[in-house]
Amino acid sequence: MNEFDRYDVLGIGNAIVDVVAHAGDDLLEALGLEKGAMTLIDEARCEDLYARMGPARETSGGSCANTMAALAALGGRAAYVGRVRDDQLGRVFSHDIRAAGVAFRNPPAPDGPATARSLVFVTEDAQRTMQTYLGACVELSPSDVEEDLVRRADVTYLEGYLWDRPAAKDACRKAAEIAHAVGNSLSLTLSDPFCVDRWRGEFRALVQGQVDILFANEAEITSLYETASFEDAARQARGEVGLAVLTRGAKGALVLQGEQAVEIRAEPVARLLDTTGAGDLFAAGFFRGLAGCMGLADSGRLGALAAAEILSQYGARAEQPLLPLLERLRSAAA
Amino acid sequence: MNEFDRYDVLGIGNAIVDVVAHAGDDLLEALGLEKGAMTLIDEARCEDLYARMGPARETSGGSCANTMAALAALGGRAAYVGRVRDDQLGRVFSHDIRAAGVAFRNPPAPDGPATARSLVFVTEDAQRTMQTYLGACVELSPSDVEEDLVRRADVTYLEGYLWDRPAAKDACRKAAEIAHAVGNSLSLTLSDPFCVDRWRGEFRALVQGQVDILFANEAEITSLYETASFEDAARQARGEVGLAVLTRGAKGALVLQGEQAVEIRAEPVARLLDTTGAGDLFAAGFFRGLAGCMGLADSGRLGALAAAEILSQYGARAEQPLLPLLERLRSAAA
Repeated sequence: MNEFDRYDVLGIGNAIVDVVAHAGDDLLEALGLEKGAMTLIDEARCEDLYARMGPARETSGGSCANTMAALAALGGRAAYVGRVRDDQLGRVFSHDIRAAGVAFRNPPAPDGPATARSLVFVTEDAQRTMQTYLGACVELSPSDVEEDLVRRADVTYLEGYLWDRPAAKDACRKAAEIAHAVGNSLSLTLSDPFCVDRWRGEFRALVQGQVDILFANEAEITSLYETASFEDAARQARGEVGLAVLTRGAKGALVLQGEQAVEIRAEPVARLLDTTGAGDLFAAGFFRGLAGCMGLADSGRLGALAAAEILSQYGARAEQPLLPLLERLRSAAA
Repeated sequence: MNEFDRYDVLGIGNAIVDVVAHAGDDLLEALGLEKGAMTLIDEARCEDLYARMGPARETSGGSCANTMAALAALGGRAAYVGRVRDDQLGRVFSHDIRAAGVAFRNPPAPDGPATARSLVFVTEDAQRTMQTYLGACVELSPSDVEEDLVRRADVTYLEGYLWDRPAAKDACRKAAEIAHAVGNSLSLTLSDPFCVDRWRGEFRALVQGQVDILFANEAEITSLYETASFEDAARQARGEVGLAVLTRGAKGALVLQGEQAVEIRAEPVARLLDTTGAGDLFAAGFFRGLAGCMGLADSGRLGALAAAEILSQYGARAEQPLLPLLERLRSAAA
C-alpha cells in the first residue's frame, strides 16, 4: 500500500463463490429448503444438494464482498478481508474482487477446507434461497485482519454472518476496536433474519454499544427487536444507533439519523429476475453516497438505483457498469 | 445404460468452462487478441490474460457440449464425450451437462492438466473473443469414445476444434467408423474460420467423403472453399455433402439438401448481449427438428429461435427453459 492510500470502506466477510440455478418451489420443498434464507450446510450436504440442482452458473459472491465490488464499481475506494483456499474457486474469487478494483490482500490458504460456495436456488418469484458451505471461511481469524487496513478505512463494515464462527467474530472485535481507537466508523449488516435469531443478544449489544451505521432489511430488523411491527423496530433502532438504513424491498427504504427520518422510494425494475444481492448493492450505493458527502436522501436514492440494477440480472456482481447511476442521480437533482 | 437407450445425437468435443467478462475494444487491442475468433493459448498465457481480464462469470461451455445441453433442454436425447480433470471446474462441467439431461459417461481424469477453460471477452458489439486453454482436453483419445454409445446414437456430431489435437482427431475417426458401420449418420461443425484455415485439407476430405450433415457459418464455409462468395461456397458444399446447414448471423441461414434450398430467417432478438453460442444453439434446434422429423424449414426455424434466445443473454447455456420454443414453432405453423 502507498503510504497515502485510504479507503472509504473496508469490508470483512465470508468469501464465497455463488453457484446459481433456477429451481421450482417443488424442488425447494423436496430438498427441505427454507425459501429466502441463508442456511449453513456441511460438505456432505453440499455435495448432495449440488447433485440435485439444475445446470448452474458460478459468480463470485459473499454479501460484504458484493458490496465492496459494487462500491468500487461506483467509483468508491474499497478494501476487503476474507479467506479463500488456493483452489480454482479461490482464484476465481480473488480475481473477481481485485478486477472490480477492491484492495484484497489476504493470501489464499495453502491447506484446509476448500473455498466456500453457496448453492443459490432462484425461484420463479425471483427469490433466492442460499445453502452455504463455509469451507475456508471457517478459519477466518484475527490474524487475517491487517491493523493498517482498518486504520486507513473511514468505515469498517462487518457481516452479521461472521458471528456464526467464533474466530471470525474475534476478527470482527479486533477490527471494531482498531477502527474506533483511531476515530473511524463501524458498520454492521444484520445479514439474514435467521442469523439475527441465532445472535440476537450479541447483535443487540453491538448495535447499542458500538455500531455507528446499521444496515438491515425489514425481516432482519423486526427479528432483532422481536416485533411484528416495522415501525416499532425502526423506532427502537433509531434510539440505539446513530445511522440506521432499513430496506423494505418494493416498499423502498427508511434512513434514520438522529431526528431525521428519510423515506427512500424503490426504483422501478424493468424485469425482476433475482433478488440476490439487492441489500448488498443498496449498501454499496449508500456507502458511495456517504463517501461523496451526498446526504441521506441522495445516498438512499443511489442505494435504491444500485439495488434495482442488480434485481434485473442473475447473481450479485453487476454485469453492467454502475457509474451511469451517478449520472442518473445528478440528472434527477438538476 | 438401459439396453433400449438410444440417443438422437452423440456429441464429441472439447469440454471447457467459459470465463466470461466484458471488454472494451482497447483491451482486446492491448492484449493482441483476434476479435470474434477462438485462439488456443497455453497455461502461462492463460494466467496472464486472466489477470488482465475484468470481473467474470463462469458457465460451462464447449461448443458441442452447448449443443448437447440445448438439445436436451429442447426435449431431445443427447449424449456427450469429453475429458475433464477431477478438479473444481471439472466438477462444474460434469454437473452442468448432466443436470441438463445429457448422458455424460466419461470419468474425470485423476491426473494431468487441469480442466480446460476459455477466457471469453465480450465486447460492446456483443462479439465474443475466446482464448482457450485446452488443459485436460489435450488427452482426449480414442479410448474415451465408447463404441456402444456411438452405436446407440442416430447422429454422431464432431467439433472441428478437435482437429487441433492428433489424439482427439483419432477419437473422431474411431467414432466416424463405428457410426457408419452401423448405419448411423456423421455430422461435423467447422467450428471457427481459423480452425478451418488450420485443417482445410482434412476438412475438405471429410466433407466430401464422410460427413452426412455439415454445420458452418458464413466465415467458416467461405474459408473452407477459399472463396469470398457465400453463394459460391454454398454451391460447392451442396455438391459435396448430403445436408448442409449454413448460418449467416442476422442474415439468417441456408439449408441445402439435394435439390432443396431452404432459406431461414433470423429471429428477432430483444436485446443483443452476447453472440457466444449462437451457432451451437442453432445446431441444437436443428437437430431437435431432425429428431422430430420436422422437415428442413421447421428444423431451421427452431434453430433460429434457439440462437435468438442465446443471443439475448451472456454465455452459451440457456438461462431460460427452451421447451417454449417448440410451442412457438407449433403456433406459427397453426
